Amino acid sequence: MMDKISNTIERIKPLDEEAMAGARMRQDNLTKPQGSLGQLESLSIQIAGIKGNPRPQIIHKVIFTLAGDHGVTQEAVSAYPSAVTPQMVYNFLQGGAGINVLARQVGARVVIADLGVASVLKRHPDLKDKKVAMGTQNMCKGPAMSREEATISIEVGIDLVEEELSKGIDILGTGDMGIGNTTPSSAITAVMTGADVSMVTGTGTGLDDEGWRRKVKAIQKALEINQPDRKDPLDVLSKVGGFEIGGIAGVILAGAKYRIPVVVDGFISGAAALIAASLSAQVRPYLIASHLSVEKGHKIILESLGLRPLLNLGMRLGEGTGAALAISLVEASLRILDEMATFTEAGVSEKI
Amino acid sequence: MMDKISNTIERIKPLDEEAMAGARMRQDNLTKPQGSLGQLESLSIQIAGIKGNPRPQIIHKVIFTLAGDHGVTQEAVSAYPSAVTPQMVYNFLQGGAGINVLARQVGARVVIADLGVASVLKRHPDLKDKKVAMGTQNMCKGPAMSREEATISIEVGIDLVEEELSKGIDILGTGDMGIGNTTPSSAITAVMTGADVSMVTGTGTGLDDEGWRRKVKAIQKALEINQPDRKDPLDVLSKVGGFEIGGIAGVILAGAKYRIPVVVDGFISGAAALIAASLSAQVRPYLIASHLSVEKGHKIILESLGLRPLLNLGMRLGEGTGAALAISLVEASLRILDEMATFTEAGVSEKI
Repeated sequence: MMDKISNTIERIKPLDEEAMAGARMRQDNLTKPQGSLGQLESLSIQIAGIKGNPRPQIIHKVIFTLAGDHGVTQEAVSAYPSAVTPQMVYNFLQGGAGINVLARQVGARVVIADLGVASVLKRHPDLKDKKVAMGTQNMCKGPAMSREEATISIEVGIDLVEEELSKGIDILGTGDMGIGNTTPSSAITAVMTGADVSMVTGTGTGLDDEGWRRKVKAIQKALEINQPDRKDPLDVLSKVGGFEIGGIAGVILAGAKYRIPVVVDGFISGAAALIAASLSAQVRPYLIASHLSVEKGHKIILESLGLRPLLNLGMRLGEGTGAALAISLVEASLRILDEMATFTEAGVSEKI
Repeated sequence: MMDKISNTIERIKPLDEEAMAGARMRQDNLTKPQGSLGQLESLSIQIAGIKGNPRPQIIHKVIFTLAGDHGVTQEAVSAYPSAVTPQMVYNFLQGGAGINVLARQVGARVVIADLGVASVLKRHPDLKDKKVAMGTQNMCKGPAMSREEATISIEVGIDLVEEELSKGIDILGTGDMGIGNTTPSSAITAVMTGADVSMVTGTGTGLDDEGWRRKVKAIQKALEINQPDRKDPLDVLSKVGGFEIGGIAGVILAGAKYRIPVVVDGFISGAAALIAASLSAQVRPYLIASHLSVEKGHKIILESLGLRPLLNLGMRLGEGTGAALAISLVEASLRILDEMATFTEAGVSEKI
């Protein structure tokens, strides 16, 4: 059952130190004070290490936007009805959503996949049907899904990346769509980081105070009833997770396996990254945190993973929108590394 | 003498409230929870107000990178020799500097101007000769320049923008090059914000502790000798400023006059923005803070101007590099406003 996941994890190797040293040396010889481009410099060095190339190039960019529904919406934890999940999938397919716009700007293709939308979606050539089930169960009454389903959700995430390899993936971004999915994400964050539920629960798409208190209580109830085991990420995913969250964890694992930089979107993708990093500690260096979400649990996720976000624009949309914006910064970092002149080339004097 | 400056200031008008209301209404009807794209939403509304168009477009992008030298380098306040200023100008002209790379990425043209480099530069078709003088005087021994020269530096900044208008400018970014120019920028910041010199003085291109103390003392001495009058921005610019700083202030004023969004780079451009905003309080709404520089005085400048930076990547290169990166975020904000589907268009349900 776990063969595909184990096989993926086993093949995740450390970053290439030699390529990183080469990139660092070049950065230090470019016509600027050393370190003066800050995170753009460290980012280019990280990408060099991921790709095993001291002067890497990015051509093919892919955002994986995975959709799923959540039984826990029965507890009135979201400001929007579940019907919005399939409606937004159609919006993605028509190119009218935020992620379509920002992906077009950066020249990324968007792979849209149904991991577990709670309705039968119309077939569409651009929609990947990877439905594990018709939405999760209500985690306040029992596990969100079976352990087998949790495994499958990760496996199909891996499949999604593998199916795109032949078209080229030099960098990937993660994204999500699923009404109610900040609730399982907060639950996962509470379990995996040990933080109090109230500290990792935000207002999602726009809950009022009463709605927020209801959401916190629902998560507390789900944790009490299900008793997820922090040391067993599949247990956590199955009991208080979601299909798109499992799928994103799979996308992340596959990215690391194939030495593709993984630009992690916001809170939901962050929860998936916690699952992926718990399955394999080797994943961490392949991750790039795109932005800091308004969702209050996100900061705790990033601290737990040791990641510093590139952007902090007060965003909380998901879909991969933060990832798309950040890919442009990654490209900037690589262009700097590749295109800037060295002190010698430009005949510029060095530090006194 | 001040005719051009007065004329420019008089024509700076408030933002267009009607266009802003139109943009805000459209943002609120796009298929995302209201406010979920954070600063991208407010940015698009600001640009709508600047351009007087509820759905503005950006095609022509220009970075103005202005160079000047500083007599205060005699006090050993920089980690690099003054020879680097002209060397970097040639690097700009050859396309090998950081700003060239990042401007290419965002599709902006770079206007390079000599406002006061302390050597005779070789003519080049892409170099604008706006030299006010062969570098400033050492401000530790008297005023950096005459009041007339300060005026001229602002006027030629205005000229630079006006000369580009016929080629199209839908957005502009500011940039600087000048060995030693964090020293006058710190001096201006101390005067204009009232902050203590040590609180607004950083390590520039890479001073050690001793160098930093020397730099603080030099600035204190310059302020003591010159006694710049905070209420008279031309007095401040002439006594403790720089030609490229005055030029950037002129670029900013002209941008506001012609209703062009002004993306302000880092610390040196920030000091110029203090001068421009002191000449006309109407300038402020036209400004977009690109990033927060590592230079410690920059935060104080942005707070004083009431600006929130879009990026915080630990950068301190200048040249307009932060502005170039931020223009890409401004474009993202306008694409969102223009290209996203509304709830009605996409058939997506609204909030419960």
